Amino acid sequence: MNKLLIISKEKEKYLSLFKQSDLPDLEICHDLRKADIVLADPPLILDLLNQFESVDWVQSTFTGIDALTHPDLRQDYDLTNVKGIFGQQISEYVLGYCIQYFRHFSLYEQQQQKKQWQPHSYSSLTDKVMVILGTGSIGCALAKTAKALGFTAYGINRLGIPPKDSPFEKVFHITEMSSAFKQADVIVSTLPKTEQTVGLLNIDTLNDCNGALLFNVGRGDVIDNYGLLHALESQSLSHAFLDVFINEPLSQECSYWHHPNITVTPHIAAISFPEQVFEQFSENYLRWRDGFSLLNLVDFDKGY
Amino acid sequence: MNKLLIISKEKEKYLSLFKQSDLPDLEICHDLRKADIVLADPPLILDLLNQFESVDWVQSTFTGIDALTHPDLRQDYDLTNVKGIFGQQISEYVLGYCIQYFRHFSLYEQQQQKKQWQPHSYSSLTDKVMVILGTGSIGCALAKTAKALGFTAYGINRLGIPPKDSPFEKVFHITEMSSAFKQADVIVSTLPKTEQTVGLLNIDTLNDCNGALLFNVGRGDVIDNYGLLHALESQSLSHAFLDVFINEPLSQECSYWHHPNITVTPHIAAISFPEQVFEQFSENYLRWRDGFSLLNLVDFDKGY
Repeated sequence: MNKLLIISKEKEKYLSLFKQSDLPDLEICHDLRKADIVLADPPLILDLLNQFESVDWVQSTFTGIDALTHPDLRQDYDLTNVKGIFGQQISEYVLGYCIQYFRHFSLYEQQQQKKQWQPHSYSSLTDKVMVILGTGSIGCALAKTAKALGFTAYGINRLGIPPKDSPFEKVFHITEMSSAFKQADVIVSTLPKTEQTVGLLNIDTLNDCNGALLFNVGRGDVIDNYGLLHALESQSLSHAFLDVFINEPLSQECSYWHHPNITVTPHIAAISFPEQVFEQFSENYLRWRDGFSLLNLVDFDKGY
Repeated sequence: MNKLLIISKEKEKYLSLFKQSDLPDLEICHDLRKADIVLADPPLILDLLNQFESVDWVQSTFTGIDALTHPDLRQDYDLTNVKGIFGQQISEYVLGYCIQYFRHFSLYEQQQQKKQWQPHSYSSLTDKVMVILGTGSIGCALAKTAKALGFTAYGINRLGIPPKDSPFEKVFHITEMSSAFKQADVIVSTLPKTEQTVGLLNIDTLNDCNGALLFNVGRGDVIDNYGLLHALESQSLSHAFLDVFINEPLSQECSYWHHPNITVTPHIAAISFPEQVFEQFSENYLRWRDGFSLLNLVDFDKGY
């Protein structure tokens, strides 16, 4: 029998999904030392890693696994994350806030409170360009829905090569970021935290924007705090929608909370629905048991 | 020379578009009695209709032309409206408010003011059904974008027959409205004002809803005030988003303004962009001049 340990805020839900499933040769185990498979929220096992004595495979319940990829941490196990289930939710978040912004919903809400009937002019999304940093499954899903709603979608990645079945009108190499930013009405970072992405959006790179909206739905570390505030001040950026932060929950002292041009949300652009995560875990478990390679295996060196 | 009279809130803009165009055999005329073509916002010519002595064709700058279809008004001219240019804007409005509602944007805005980091659970649009009353060009455009964002889209029309190249998963006959409403998470009326549609959404028909959101982006008369308030009270409807009203601007006395479950917007779900209207007018003018039948000709009896 293979031994599965579950460490997650949603543990009860996962246990119930496990009970309903009929995964062969697998039993729940509560002993860190004996588990060979761990299904876990990455931050919750950071301090437990060295206590796992028989771990062979860790299935992350998140896409972001940067908590576990620091070079000082052990890497003698297979780490897989979840993919392909967050594009829909990220699309809803980004497009919802875009429409709210461009179509003046907040203004109309204030007017309603004052019984004011006052239309305001606007331009439709069909005139606008969305630049997406990261052309992985989330970036692609977002580009597809953004296009359906009228946007022209450009991608940016490390190679400047469009992904398979690319939904992007054009894909820029990371070194051409400035040229893409100049044309952007909306910029969305879906980037993971890696050595290359930390502080990528800083005073220099954001300076090239022409009043764009900036979304961060990847990892907080990609944005340099000073560069962001400066870009909002100089109106290179019109507004920032931030869902991820270097430290979460966001500190009470952070100036973002009361910044008139920053929207703070508590890491809810996409959440891991246990049903979807467990489906990916189940498929991976069957592969693991039968000796096939795991899906969504993380490269510790690349960091994703 | 044919004589064109322009009567619109956007008159200056239309005059400038006319100057830039090179429509043959057409000149601007300022005399009501001499114009043979009138380009007009329908409500603005209601009281002038009988003064037109040579009018042959009126091109409406709106889709909604019910101001001009009352049986007591003269109908001895061709009336055309604009079509196919509002679907995009209506989609932005409906989908934007849907996402704002289902993804708790207002709640997060309040929390930000209080520096509260508190995620709330939600379900994605992929689980939801949108029922659209009216399967014309606006209904079809909305169904297409709603599908791209994950909704299952049902239509309702007078025949129960899907339109050409239907984007609807299913189309219900108007007599089956109740069965469609029972399944709806979102209901959108795009209906024009006609004898058949006035008061269609009333205490009986809305009673079948299971906590749906209701959007009215067609004509205000389709909703019965008492039925709407009752449905919100009994929670057959969770929230109503109203952009159109029987009398506009909405009266200061109307209880909608301060109803916690009603969002009032000042008829901005879709506006007539003069560039797009003038493009349709130009195409129609060339047809009219050459003796071909006009596009988007209104049937006075049907009322659309």
